[in-house]
Amino acid sequence: MKRPAALQELIAELQKLPGIGQKTAERLSFYLLRGTKERAQRLARAVEGLKEKIVLCSQCHGIADKDPCDICSDPNRNAAQICVVEEPHDVYVFESLGEYKGLYHVLMGVISPLDGVGPQDLTVDHLKSKVEENPAREIILATNPDMEGESTAVYIARVLKPLGAKVTRIARGLPVGGDIEYADPVTLKKSLEGRGPA
Amino acid sequence: MKRPAALQELIAELQKLPGIGQKTAERLSFYLLRGTKERAQRLARAVEGLKEKIVLCSQCHGIADKDPCDICSDPNRNAAQICVVEEPHDVYVFESLGEYKGLYHVLMGVISPLDGVGPQDLTVDHLKSKVEENPAREIILATNPDMEGESTAVYIARVLKPLGAKVTRIARGLPVGGDIEYADPVTLKKSLEGRGPA
Repeated sequence: MKRPAALQELIAELQKLPGIGQKTAERLSFYLLRGTKERAQRLARAVEGLKEKIVLCSQCHGIADKDPCDICSDPNRNAAQICVVEEPHDVYVFESLGEYKGLYHVLMGVISPLDGVGPQDLTVDHLKSKVEENPAREIILATNPDMEGESTAVYIARVLKPLGAKVTRIARGLPVGGDIEYADPVTLKKSLEGRGPA
Repeated sequence: MKRPAALQELIAELQKLPGIGQKTAERLSFYLLRGTKERAQRLARAVEGLKEKIVLCSQCHGIADKDPCDICSDPNRNAAQICVVEEPHDVYVFESLGEYKGLYHVLMGVISPLDGVGPQDLTVDHLKSKVEENPAREIILATNPDMEGESTAVYIARVLKPLGAKVTRIARGLPVGGDIEYADPVTLKKSLEGRGPA
């Protein structure tokens, strides 16, 4: 016996989301089915509104209500620092710290030859032109400390350094609260290389 | 810095779903944001279509495209057996076995005094009238083997037996592939009580 088509369809759509398998998709669908029509409509409208109301900032490529975004249009932010991140949501992770007062630049991905993503698919050229305009800036490379993120950082550093920019990379080392005994060798090596005054 | 309102809204709506916390809601939202507009629209339409296109079968209270549902309107199903389940999706769990050929009756919940759910909130009266029409039926109680499910089964058995129905309960015992050493005492006791010919 087959499930009603509308239910099958929702389960199929939910399964396309990351981390949602068949069982979870079924559970969520039946939950929505049990709930009120208003609840399902609110969720549907929120999903639709997402792509309709959100714009990409033409300056930092982050997501925003308007262009330029709140950060790029804030005169109190330090324009001498640009934090380069992979994805728009990384901006919010740094912002949630409340520490960083500079600007951002979202790459919109990482260089990943296996996935067919090269530097030309990212916003590297735009970052380059920002540095050319004002080479005195510090460019903080905050891509993920994984293989793609590291090679993207290496690539960008190689592009920007000849232009006279000060290019830095976020520190890689032992996470606070971690245990040296269980640290992986690469992290431990990085924590030694990146050691600072005690 | 605050996230765009449309994004906040979707994260809030997703967080209302069971098993979806803030991190997962954020991850899903950013995933949808990165995807095409069409993908988000397909999901939105699937969510909306769910409550618009699906009906409850007036005979078994299961969900269906039409009323009566495919199972209730199938002349090849054995009308002498009614499998009583808690929720509409339990029907699909049994159907996926391909073993059971009788009809279903969905209670739409379980008796749960703590949640203020009594027998009058369930479809017990309708089940009773089905038995009154035809007392020769076997009523298979397939509520969950947890506290609420067990007490609901006990209650229904007490209501239906005086009407002359043959009331059975699905077997509780050790799950296949399980280990006696790690079985909980209640399950082990049930598996002893319910022992059959070897």
